[in-house]
Amino acid sequence: MPIKTLVWGENVHEQENPVVAGLYPEGMHATIASALNEDAGIAATTAVLQDAEHGLTEERLAKTDVLVWWGHAAHGKVEDAIVERVQKRVWEGMGLIVLHSGHFSKIFKRLMGTACSLKWREAGERERIWVVNRSHRIAQGLGECIELPNTEMYGEPFAVPEPLETVFISWFEGGEVFRSGLTYQRGAGKIFYFRPGHETYPIYHNTEVRQVLRNAVHWAHNPAPAWTAIADAPNVPVAAAKEKLVQKGPRLHRDGEEGLR
Amino acid sequence: MPIKTLVWGENVHEQENPVVAGLYPEGMHATIASALNEDAGIAATTAVLQDAEHGLTEERLAKTDVLVWWGHAAHGKVEDAIVERVQKRVWEGMGLIVLHSGHFSKIFKRLMGTACSLKWREAGERERIWVVNRSHRIAQGLGECIELPNTEMYGEPFAVPEPLETVFISWFEGGEVFRSGLTYQRGAGKIFYFRPGHETYPIYHNTEVRQVLRNAVHWAHNPAPAWTAIADAPNVPVAAAKEKLVQKGPRLHRDGEEGLR
Amino acid sequence: MPIKTLVWGENVHEQENPVVAGLYPEGMHATIASALNEDAGIAATTAVLQDAEHGLTEERLAKTDVLVWWGHAAHGKVEDAIVERVQKRVWEGMGLIVLHSGHFSKIFKRLMGTACSLKWREAGERERIWVVNRSHRIAQGLGECIELPNTEMYGEPFAVPEPLETVFISWFEGGEVFRSGLTYQRGAGKIFYFRPGHETYPIYHNTEVRQVLRNAVHWAHNPAPAWTAIADAPNVPVAAAKEKLVQKGPRLHRDGEEGLR
Amino acid sequence: MPIKTLVWGENVHEQENPVVAGLYPEGMHATIASALNEDAGIAATTAVLQDAEHGLTEERLAKTDVLVWWGHAAHGKVEDAIVERVQKRVWEGMGLIVLHSGHFSKIFKRLMGTACSLKWREAGERERIWVVNRSHRIAQGLGECIELPNTEMYGEPFAVPEPLETVFISWFEGGEVFRSGLTYQRGAGKIFYFRPGHETYPIYHNTEVRQVLRNAVHWAHNPAPAWTAIADAPNVPVAAAKEKLVQKGPRLHRDGEEGLR
Repeated sequence: MPIKTLVWGENVHEQENPVVAGLYPEGMHATIASALNEDAGIAATTAVLQDAEHGLTEERLAKTDVLVWWGHAAHGKVEDAIVERVQKRVWEGMGLIVLHSGHFSKIFKRLMGTACSLKWREAGERERIWVVNRSHRIAQGLGECIELPNTEMYGEPFAVPEPLETVFISWFEGGEVFRSGLTYQRGAGKIFYFRPGHETYPIYHNTEVRQVLRNAVHWAHNPAPAWTAIADAPNVPVAAAKEKLVQKGPRLHRDGEEGLR
Repeated sequence: MPIKTLVWGENVHEQENPVVAGLYPEGMHATIASALNEDAGIAATTAVLQDAEHGLTEERLAKTDVLVWWGHAAHGKVEDAIVERVQKRVWEGMGLIVLHSGHFSKIFKRLMGTACSLKWREAGERERIWVVNRSHRIAQGLGECIELPNTEMYGEPFAVPEPLETVFISWFEGGEVFRSGLTYQRGAGKIFYFRPGHETYPIYHNTEVRQVLRNAVHWAHNPAPAWTAIADAPNVPVAAAKEKLVQKGPRLHRDGEEGLR
Repeated sequence: MPIKTLVWGENVHEQENPVVAGLYPEGMHATIASALNEDAGIAATTAVLQDAEHGLTEERLAKTDVLVWWGHAAHGKVEDAIVERVQKRVWEGMGLIVLHSGHFSKIFKRLMGTACSLKWREAGERERIWVVNRSHRIAQGLGECIELPNTEMYGEPFAVPEPLETVFISWFEGGEVFRSGLTYQRGAGKIFYFRPGHETYPIYHNTEVRQVLRNAVHWAHNPAPAWTAIADAPNVPVAAAKEKLVQKGPRLHRDGEEGLR
Repeated sequence: MPIKTLVWGENVHEQENPVVAGLYPEGMHATIASALNEDAGIAATTAVLQDAEHGLTEERLAKTDVLVWWGHAAHGKVEDAIVERVQKRVWEGMGLIVLHSGHFSKIFKRLMGTACSLKWREAGERERIWVVNRSHRIAQGLGECIELPNTEMYGEPFAVPEPLETVFISWFEGGEVFRSGLTYQRGAGKIFYFRPGHETYPIYHNTEVRQVLRNAVHWAHNPAPAWTAIADAPNVPVAAAKEKLVQKGPRLHRDGEEGLR
């Protein structure tokens, strides 16, 4: 069964900026989804900021295996309640791929717990994305690096937690470096940050970038049953203890009482 | 110069529950601070939920090297704006030690990005905290384990990210285990979660627990200058690039414009 | 295509000790292989210490996707040259599952770089293996813990590097704890250490242990092409540099010369 | 009390190559030690390959807090027995700083468990070492990057395990990147790999490189008592169990018997 993938786009610059509209006439989300749908093992659909509930209803998220996120101009317009819903679904096991300027999205900052800041420059300079973890699922089918002739520069320090794995590191013509492919896990959800994607360049038309997107969906997919109770804090009564126990000492809670939180 | 340490207590059960008041007549925060002040290298003061701004003003946080957090019944009463302020200060380099039921505090959940949930049982059972990383700064002066005759049980799975280091793991009489000492870093701030501390038992009067608290303050202290600009995303203009660059291609931003966030 | 899995057993106590022979009349390796072959996605065969080249020829290793290692009494009899061969093959991408007393095998110590020591007691005590990372591939199909009525105790500190992931932690009747399921990567090879397996108890006949073994083979399998050149240190000549370069300054090496190592 | 630091140099190219001898007339080890001795908190001495036991006797290592290692041409001439001795001392808590071509030293390969391979080019090109973990002890006193006008290039993939922390990443004029500052722990020993240092350039005369060396000694110093028993695997007899135990089931070992290894 193909991996049910939802590509979320904020869909703002595509509507407002003629360069972006020219590169992505149906929206960046549509181009990204088209890359994913080249793989018969992935079934990608799209949602945008302007949809009801940003297209991220409980029902839709429950059926989503992997969510891909692209946002830039309108991070602040994403409603907090929906960000919390997405976060909960990641904890349950939905994969999340955060692209480029999504480093400043509410969902990424919440899952990282850090500022997620970086340096930047929009000069159309050359970028070379080196494969650091060569045999990683996300790097399959690539050569030793990906070259992009025109990109926005992102420079270190990138204020994120130490990753589980560093998959890619970028070299920039102007002299900077950046950790461009990083993996994390939060709850049961596997998270991949992938740097390329500035909207004024045809990044998501690049063959190798498209390969990485497909790879990342496969990597981020966790087929384990959804861990829907992950936010619960269940009491284990004395009578249910694995080892025989006798209640001792003073207590805050009566039998069967909920814990504090 | 001693490490300026602030012990924050929610100070609720000490006021309401006679058992807790009996164990901690001046409040748990006062007992914890007394443990720290046994070390001439630490200067600990206290603040409580009921103080103006919860005792966590900008000025006070700016002067704090390490913050110790104990809360349980009133996590929801801590104002979001102040939690954000504490989070920012951790990013800048303030150490943070989160104790026991603080696993469900707003500040810990924000910094971890996860549910921070666990199993629990309040049966006064025996706990044995094993030292896993024997030569870690936080484990100095201890034997191979700490035994606590009466504790609340916390059981795995503990829904936190993979830690940088696992320092302690607990064994419980009722049959469970728990990762009781975990380290993290967020921005420049070093974070230590330490499990013991249920308020109906004299945990913070235990000699070895007090030793761990002092050790943890030393470990969490980052003497580097505060990284106050950590949340900024500075533009690096073409003219300031380390390597000579020529502006190429279309742009979203004019020279000198702020980035989107 | 099923995952080509090789179960290696030292096959000593099965021949010498009537208790072990009674539990594992065809050898522990055969029992482990039978657990794996219950899964149509795995094709497991066996090799033993007493085979020529310990059954670990270049040809056989080249065709092996995942190697499972059980040894105890005869670690010192495994030839160094063959250990190096196995290590190289792990770097290339062969998965490795190290069981129980294999913590002191040459191959595990070489891949970890540490002493791999621990405490132990052979008292037939109860063990409860808690699932810490519930949605991990290796934990699928299990409940919250595995109970083993009679096991050898292994206690912390376990002198291994901080793992990528802690999947299981054990509780022991006698009061100790142990990190019983740990993941690592070395080169392209995924490594899983799994604690249970003392030869005087029927551990590898336990249904849930057998499930973990199958899960671990799936997790450790890296389908990326073998990274056979991983130990090379290729020179990148000036003429082949990605950016145009001019040779500057003094040199140790002439054009085309091998590097030192 | 100053940190007792031993700088080990293989002292080969300084004797054979006039360029190297010109830059380091007293040997690279002497120049490195001079950088460390600018800090009153460090007391650095030197040892070389040609010394008896390579200058690394049991007695001297026992008194060493941090060992700094530079080698290139003669890795194979370092005796295995002495490498094992150094490895044991790292496990006990001695810090280790491995410089540049030391990536291929026996001691580093043993502690990492990997091939430690990389790409290289000796073209005298420009390197810019970016600070990724800005508030790390090892990065104190630096700006956002260190620029070296002429260096040997090292390029990814660098075949080492995922580090605890990535402190520095290098940009090279010829288009490559490299993780130039990585931290690890093995047993109680803290390990830092630092890339710069090719012998045909005056790298260890650079002010900022010298600052990093001093910082790294402070970071790598573990003042905990030496964990001399780290390689032991002590039996815990039934009578000494923390919880009351009754011996059950069949056994391999008699009371008081040594474990197998």
